[in-house]
Amino acid sequence: MMNYVRFTTLNTVNGLTQSQLDFLLDAQSNSIGALLLHCAAVEYYYQVLTFEKRDLNEEEYSIWGAALDLGEEGREKIKGNDLSFYINKLEQVRNKTLDLFKSINDDWLYVEEDFWYDKQANHYFMWFHVFEDEINHRGQMRMIRKKINI
Amino acid sequence: MMNYVRFTTLNTVNGLTQSQLDFLLDAQSNSIGALLLHCAAVEYYYQVLTFEKRDLNEEEYSIWGAALDLGEEGREKIKGNDLSFYINKLEQVRNKTLDLFKSINDDWLYVEEDFWYDKQANHYFMWFHVFEDEINHRGQMRMIRKKINI
Repeated sequence: MMNYVRFTTLNTVNGLTQSQLDFLLDAQSNSIGALLLHCAAVEYYYQVLTFEKRDLNEEEYSIWGAALDLGEEGREKIKGNDLSFYINKLEQVRNKTLDLFKSINDDWLYVEEDFWYDKQANHYFMWFHVFEDEINHRGQMRMIRKKINI
Repeated sequence: MMNYVRFTTLNTVNGLTQSQLDFLLDAQSNSIGALLLHCAAVEYYYQVLTFEKRDLNEEEYSIWGAALDLGEEGREKIKGNDLSFYINKLEQVRNKTLDLFKSINDDWLYVEEDFWYDKQANHYFMWFHVFEDEINHRGQMRMIRKKINI
């Protein structure tokens, strides 16, 4: 499922130029570039959460904060990059995820921890959420792409 | 995963009025109402595909076609409904899905059939795709909702 989702995300942004990646529907919108970096940032966040059982530290937050939070800071800081920049970030983080997955077995997927809504969730669900978030934003990227008339 | 996705979809559209459900970002856009009915239509389509191994017949297509295909026909035919109309459709179709799921066991999930891209896919993946499509459109609904400033 993770691989398929990434395949569809990359298809969605295939061939976009720097200015198309920076395009904003309006002053409150996120660019496709920012949404791509958000996907990498969320995946990084869940590596740290599920494998190290901690939140991002200050240094990590200075790197990923804008992409995690999007909004005003995202619009300010995430622009001027071409597609290969975003694809490289996505690949670097994904390769780390695959390495981490090699270090555990399927039982790990069913280990439960405290999570949202005062409920427990297992690692399977947490990693489902990582690509569920990517699908959500892929839908938005498709919509934005249509509006740039490419 | 299916239940969680539906929970987030319903949260996304909670409290929307008829005119908000009909709102179009521009002349090429889909309304939130049309996207909701699309989710029900896709689920119905996969009931027929995976449990009856057939395509929609003419009568079914006359009911679900506009919601499946969206675009011009969707904009023309899917409007003027309040939220309960869409929620009822989603629930009716979901209840049928749950009934159908009761009729099979986990082995069924791993049965493979011809599918996209000249590849085989198992029923698990096909039903993942049903809610993957819902997540995709939920992302779009969230974006549209923000633009109506609710």
